[in-house]
Amino acid sequence: MPATPFDSIHLSHLFPSGDTARLFSDSAEIRALMLVEGALAKAQGARGTIPETAAAAIHRAALECQIDPVGLAKSTGLNGVSTPALVEAFREAMQAPEHAAFVHWGATSQDIQDTALMLRLRQAITHQSDRLRATLIALAELADAHADTPMAGRTFGQHAAPTSFGAQVAQWGAPLLSLFKGSEAIRGNLYVSLSGSVGTGSHLGDDPAALRADLAQGLNLTDPERCWHTDRSPILNIAAWFTRSALAAARLAEDLWLAAQSDAAEITLPQAGGSSTLPQKQNPVQPSACVALARHAQGLHATLEGASMHRQQRDGAAWFTEWLTLPQLVLAAASAMTHAQALAETLTPDTAAMSATLEANSLVHAEALSFALAQSMPRPKAQHITKTLCQQARETGSPLSQIAREAHPDLPPSVFDSAANLGCAPQEARSFAQAVRAAL
Amino acid sequence: MPATPFDSIHLSHLFPSGDTARLFSDSAEIRALMLVEGALAKAQGARGTIPETAAAAIHRAALECQIDPVGLAKSTGLNGVSTPALVEAFREAMQAPEHAAFVHWGATSQDIQDTALMLRLRQAITHQSDRLRATLIALAELADAHADTPMAGRTFGQHAAPTSFGAQVAQWGAPLLSLFKGSEAIRGNLYVSLSGSVGTGSHLGDDPAALRADLAQGLNLTDPERCWHTDRSPILNIAAWFTRSALAAARLAEDLWLAAQSDAAEITLPQAGGSSTLPQKQNPVQPSACVALARHAQGLHATLEGASMHRQQRDGAAWFTEWLTLPQLVLAAASAMTHAQALAETLTPDTAAMSATLEANSLVHAEALSFALAQSMPRPKAQHITKTLCQQARETGSPLSQIAREAHPDLPPSVFDSAANLGCAPQEARSFAQAVRAAL
Amino acid sequence: MPATPFDSIHLSHLFPSGDTARLFSDSAEIRALMLVEGALAKAQGARGTIPETAAAAIHRAALECQIDPVGLAKSTGLNGVSTPALVEAFREAMQAPEHAAFVHWGATSQDIQDTALMLRLRQAITHQSDRLRATLIALAELADAHADTPMAGRTFGQHAAPTSFGAQVAQWGAPLLSLFKGSEAIRGNLYVSLSGSVGTGSHLGDDPAALRADLAQGLNLTDPERCWHTDRSPILNIAAWFTRSALAAARLAEDLWLAAQSDAAEITLPQAGGSSTLPQKQNPVQPSACVALARHAQGLHATLEGASMHRQQRDGAAWFTEWLTLPQLVLAAASAMTHAQALAETLTPDTAAMSATLEANSLVHAEALSFALAQSMPRPKAQHITKTLCQQARETGSPLSQIAREAHPDLPPSVFDSAANLGCAPQEARSFAQAVRAAL
Amino acid sequence: MPATPFDSIHLSHLFPSGDTARLFSDSAEIRALMLVEGALAKAQGARGTIPETAAAAIHRAALECQIDPVGLAKSTGLNGVSTPALVEAFREAMQAPEHAAFVHWGATSQDIQDTALMLRLRQAITHQSDRLRATLIALAELADAHADTPMAGRTFGQHAAPTSFGAQVAQWGAPLLSLFKGSEAIRGNLYVSLSGSVGTGSHLGDDPAALRADLAQGLNLTDPERCWHTDRSPILNIAAWFTRSALAAARLAEDLWLAAQSDAAEITLPQAGGSSTLPQKQNPVQPSACVALARHAQGLHATLEGASMHRQQRDGAAWFTEWLTLPQLVLAAASAMTHAQALAETLTPDTAAMSATLEANSLVHAEALSFALAQSMPRPKAQHITKTLCQQARETGSPLSQIAREAHPDLPPSVFDSAANLGCAPQEARSFAQAVRAAL
Repeated sequence: MPATPFDSIHLSHLFPSGDTARLFSDSAEIRALMLVEGALAKAQGARGTIPETAAAAIHRAALECQIDPVGLAKSTGLNGVSTPALVEAFREAMQAPEHAAFVHWGATSQDIQDTALMLRLRQAITHQSDRLRATLIALAELADAHADTPMAGRTFGQHAAPTSFGAQVAQWGAPLLSLFKGSEAIRGNLYVSLSGSVGTGSHLGDDPAALRADLAQGLNLTDPERCWHTDRSPILNIAAWFTRSALAAARLAEDLWLAAQSDAAEITLPQAGGSSTLPQKQNPVQPSACVALARHAQGLHATLEGASMHRQQRDGAAWFTEWLTLPQLVLAAASAMTHAQALAETLTPDTAAMSATLEANSLVHAEALSFALAQSMPRPKAQHITKTLCQQARETGSPLSQIAREAHPDLPPSVFDSAANLGCAPQEARSFAQAVRAAL
Repeated sequence: MPATPFDSIHLSHLFPSGDTARLFSDSAEIRALMLVEGALAKAQGARGTIPETAAAAIHRAALECQIDPVGLAKSTGLNGVSTPALVEAFREAMQAPEHAAFVHWGATSQDIQDTALMLRLRQAITHQSDRLRATLIALAELADAHADTPMAGRTFGQHAAPTSFGAQVAQWGAPLLSLFKGSEAIRGNLYVSLSGSVGTGSHLGDDPAALRADLAQGLNLTDPERCWHTDRSPILNIAAWFTRSALAAARLAEDLWLAAQSDAAEITLPQAGGSSTLPQKQNPVQPSACVALARHAQGLHATLEGASMHRQQRDGAAWFTEWLTLPQLVLAAASAMTHAQALAETLTPDTAAMSATLEANSLVHAEALSFALAQSMPRPKAQHITKTLCQQARETGSPLSQIAREAHPDLPPSVFDSAANLGCAPQEARSFAQAVRAAL
Repeated sequence: MPATPFDSIHLSHLFPSGDTARLFSDSAEIRALMLVEGALAKAQGARGTIPETAAAAIHRAALECQIDPVGLAKSTGLNGVSTPALVEAFREAMQAPEHAAFVHWGATSQDIQDTALMLRLRQAITHQSDRLRATLIALAELADAHADTPMAGRTFGQHAAPTSFGAQVAQWGAPLLSLFKGSEAIRGNLYVSLSGSVGTGSHLGDDPAALRADLAQGLNLTDPERCWHTDRSPILNIAAWFTRSALAAARLAEDLWLAAQSDAAEITLPQAGGSSTLPQKQNPVQPSACVALARHAQGLHATLEGASMHRQQRDGAAWFTEWLTLPQLVLAAASAMTHAQALAETLTPDTAAMSATLEANSLVHAEALSFALAQSMPRPKAQHITKTLCQQARETGSPLSQIAREAHPDLPPSVFDSAANLGCAPQEARSFAQAVRAAL
Repeated sequence: MPATPFDSIHLSHLFPSGDTARLFSDSAEIRALMLVEGALAKAQGARGTIPETAAAAIHRAALECQIDPVGLAKSTGLNGVSTPALVEAFREAMQAPEHAAFVHWGATSQDIQDTALMLRLRQAITHQSDRLRATLIALAELADAHADTPMAGRTFGQHAAPTSFGAQVAQWGAPLLSLFKGSEAIRGNLYVSLSGSVGTGSHLGDDPAALRADLAQGLNLTDPERCWHTDRSPILNIAAWFTRSALAAARLAEDLWLAAQSDAAEITLPQAGGSSTLPQKQNPVQPSACVALARHAQGLHATLEGASMHRQQRDGAAWFTEWLTLPQLVLAAASAMTHAQALAETLTPDTAAMSATLEANSLVHAEALSFALAQSMPRPKAQHITKTLCQQARETGSPLSQIAREAHPDLPPSVFDSAANLGCAPQEARSFAQAVRAAL
């Protein structure tokens, strides 16, 4: 595979990132850079910073000229940024030197690069929001449908007490819902950058602030109302949102892996993969890929956070670190979320297996038993008695229910009935579904 | 030193975390846990879940009983959480078994632990907000006072073009201001937890949701209106805020390190440290400590983010990972911010040195020269000529100003005047100061 | 708890690090620093760099004087390192100014600090090697005893094909054995440091290299034969070894968590913990703690690796980052390994449960079936037929063995016999045990 | 750009990884997989596990058949690994079903993938060793040539005391030399994998261990003599070596960035880049890229280390995490080292500037002064006097040398002569150069 599976052909279905993948390519980057140069010229023309005819010519050419990435490589390697070579290639391609001279007037490379990045991040955020929405819809349906479906709640991997599958689904969905709700706020970070070589806008005309506002409007981005060359908060905010979505996706995935284990088998995943040598295998490949993607995003996020310690007026090392991490962080999150969506939309809970688990292990009702006993004795004593009964159940292999009833014949019938001991699990499930519908 | 400098006596001034340090100790943790048990009993008594007299007795005893951490250690090691031992010790200490039986009724360990953590995080957030405020006030003063003080803007470590020291200060302050403004939103994550063993609140009385709301009110925390045992978003949000403050502090610190270098010497830091063998040394110790703390916070944050992939209804490994990382992440951020505040409050810009730097290197005006020339020729040609003049200046050692004036006698006098080429730097500085004042 | 559980009293049994904990305390650090100052004076006295009587007095006083960490705090905060204050306090405590003047002659703080650290790391490595040895002995016994015990091998969480429990144990042990074997090489990194303020040893007498060699001999550390102030490779090598031991411990722990799940229950862990509300719970607390510790060590290791980009002749930020991460990295690894040792020494495989798993799921023999069929037909066809039979087994709920025998009556009896299909699993188990015995 | 700059055309010179880049592509991966299948068949044919004619046919076809990555994508997405699709495509492409049936006999996907990876890592290690060698040769020459060239040693960014540029070079080279020397040991980790579906080699013929040894010999890889499916130590060892080389490269780069700052200007880098708007700029782009690459490698390494907690007999998530991180970790290290080599081969120290720095700041001789004074008075007193003289020098602006000589007229002339105070710096420089020559 190439440097990452995201750039690989044969791994493209294992780590799918859909439309988001198209945002990160040489040509997509160059197209975005040209768009920004064009919009900049247009804004400058309108304010008289550059001649209006030149502005019009540049704006039009920016949409039409094709710049070959091959031609930029050598100069980009030398200068550390593609803009000088791109501007030169663009000027040549325009074949109108009198207009071309006004390309990139007063801007610095970082203005163009960061703004072009924001254009693509905007689309990536939209894609991810769409995945979040679809996933939430699927989870809300599951939560509603299984609000009352009993299953064994597990803590430390041990059967603990009954809950409902719908409540479990709500737990998976909660962080995803927060992220979905937060997507509008995240868009507020989609800033235009226009501050010139050292952030002072010295050669951006009479009113650099107004020009920046115009450019923001032209590109439908937010005007930061200041230079953010070295304040990487907007990048960090966006990256954190993507990272968190990958992690939330992976939480769902990890639980599915556990539930799909041969040893539990309470959930079925239709798209299970085969083995090169094991004919029976139905491997839960998607959950594993999803978890790996989240681990990757987590690591990239840490490196990116470190790059916010940006030095002085521009810091090559910090900025390059963003280039090495942010695109694939976005792709990893997109891919993780793509898997989560597919999983949410296709998973099938095996409610019979869930019931069977509860039936087979009546120790799961020990807490209910202790509270039932505590109605007629102090709770510490009730807990002590319950522990002893559990010990007997383990040693004899008899169900706790039977042993308990023998010792305490007047226990209410509901104690060992999972459906009667779901507490607010059904309500948690339904509230989640309702909150999803309210947020759509 | 102990496991971390934060628990060390002799390193306590090098990594100071002020009042925040007191929040993370055995006794502070136990006190917080007791407070939660007391408030829970009070709320349960008011709703009739437990007898009101027992509730009153528990609530009072929670404030009075002293629990020795030594006595909890063994049981905590076995159970993975201190609550069982704490509840037992508390019951004994109450010396009123008839009331003590109602301690911790229907709650699970995680409810108590997480809520007690939130009580302490609330204070830690307040401390950090205070440090942010003080730092911003100091920076706003500097930005105002030096809005028009010229200094060399540096990109890739090279003198690039003039900016003002006030604008530089505004750049440092921008992320800190965002974080300060965000502190109210962060408080919204201070949730109470009350959901019982598997998140269903099965044994928390008739109306567990209402009880949780009561507890939230009693402790002045937010009611999450759901179980968040496994949705660690609130923890992540708070941790991210602290991490970001450490990183923003370190950005300031790193620039101060660079400016205080013997080779630049444009900023003086009064609290410089000595060496064990070099009598003349005035080491900028605080900036270095601040950067180290931020790197540490960055790493801890990554680990903590990974722990959000919480399994099933409770995941010991994920939860323990929070214990290993969150307290010191908060302390690292507190300490980094303490340094940043001290630095902001005591740094002295050497404006003469800043001027001297600009004087000594007139290449810093090359961009201005290229734009001045571009008024009478196409910009590409102006840039080309400027590059040639720069080359001559380098080879001959003569100032660019002199060489340029010889070649182009009609250049306006302002081209090589730093103060005349600050662009919107003064405005950026003053806007920042104004924004700080508006936010206080 | 304090900044980390390692400094906490009530969590000391949950994250136990045994004797290693004692190496990281204010007093242990000061003691080690004094030891180095004493050994340095002794070596300098012997070579005539300082007067021999002064050397003897310093060496003796270094063992006797008690330096209070409280007294060092303020100066350490200012200077960024405790040595100046320590030297001053030591000189005073000696009450012999004529000798005291020769304390710390020509050394720099980092020489003393790094050497003192190495003294403690030496002990920490010994402790960890001991834990590795004990763990390996326990695993070797299990591997031998269960070399032929069939269990279901699991890939992607799915029953795949039979292996033996002994082979599984060998897999856990393999990385631990590599680390144990590597412990001697790791000791080679235990360097003395003695190079003076900027690494030139300018004031360390006539032959600084010989003096360093003497000091190395005096402290029984390795002579690096050069200055390593800024080459942090020795620290990185040692840290990597500890990190890897934590990760190898956690791999064992994670598999035990999976095997101890209620849903698999193939391994019993005696030291299981209880819940504050669930009377029946036997939580596998140790495996969870072990995994958390490894995740923590992994994160600290990354931060520490980053600190190897040490600037110029000394870099406070890089060095402080080591102080923030290395001690607790060592403690985390010590604690993880303590848990692994306890787990290895106490775990009990439930061989009946392992057999029952294999019995219940005859799909686990599908690979064997496909190879048996491939003796009389091309393998692709055999695989295809096997897949179809597996599909039938799933749909009908009948065992694969029964369905396969009906369709292919002449299948050899061994195909569905786990014990007959262990391949080299028994050999892998026994080879591991043998390799352990050879390495002890 | 694509997901990473390594897969980008226009960034290919900024993050160059030379021949190593060619190892990570869809086609290189498929070619390596085919090579392993071919070698496996050959080894199996020789031992009679499969018919010898089939083996010959497979081996030949493996070299000749072209497998299109596009055709593998869908199945790889489903199965989580390309091998099933590859085997199927290969069988078809052979157009000899009677032989094709014996492709991939008894192996598991991971055997093929991991072995194919090792083939490529072998080449990557060779490339990196070559870069290390070339870098060391260049550094050794510099160290020799400048063993006696005085420069200001800097600690905490402050001029501390004289050292030599050669000694500084030796400090940069030390970790690189360790890594170069370690490259042979690293090759010992280049294992073949051949252990079948669950590591038992059940269907790999009569003597799976002998077959694995044969395959190892056929591919010139090491025979691990066991199953290492889940013991990722070999991968970790190789990854750590690459990571460390990136970090050591970046240490050199970071110091070059500092030395090339306009404010220090003691080193010239010929390949400095230009700006899109600043005509005079000569940006040290390579050092910045190198540091960014090291930060990236550091983060990827942490994630990869975490993936060593491999579950059960095969863990998709852990394995996929390797795919997401290892290739680009290798490329990042290759690219960082490519930059370091170019820097070492082209950097020019400005010895005049180094001298000028020392001349301009005679405080750099304060330590020498204190030791000179200590010959006639106790050292604490000498240090105190020196501090006072330094203070006077700072306040009056007079050189320390002048002030000191006025107060202490009999000071030896050498005290303020940098060349006379280099200590063992020249020796450190020459020893390094010698050690390099010995290691080549």
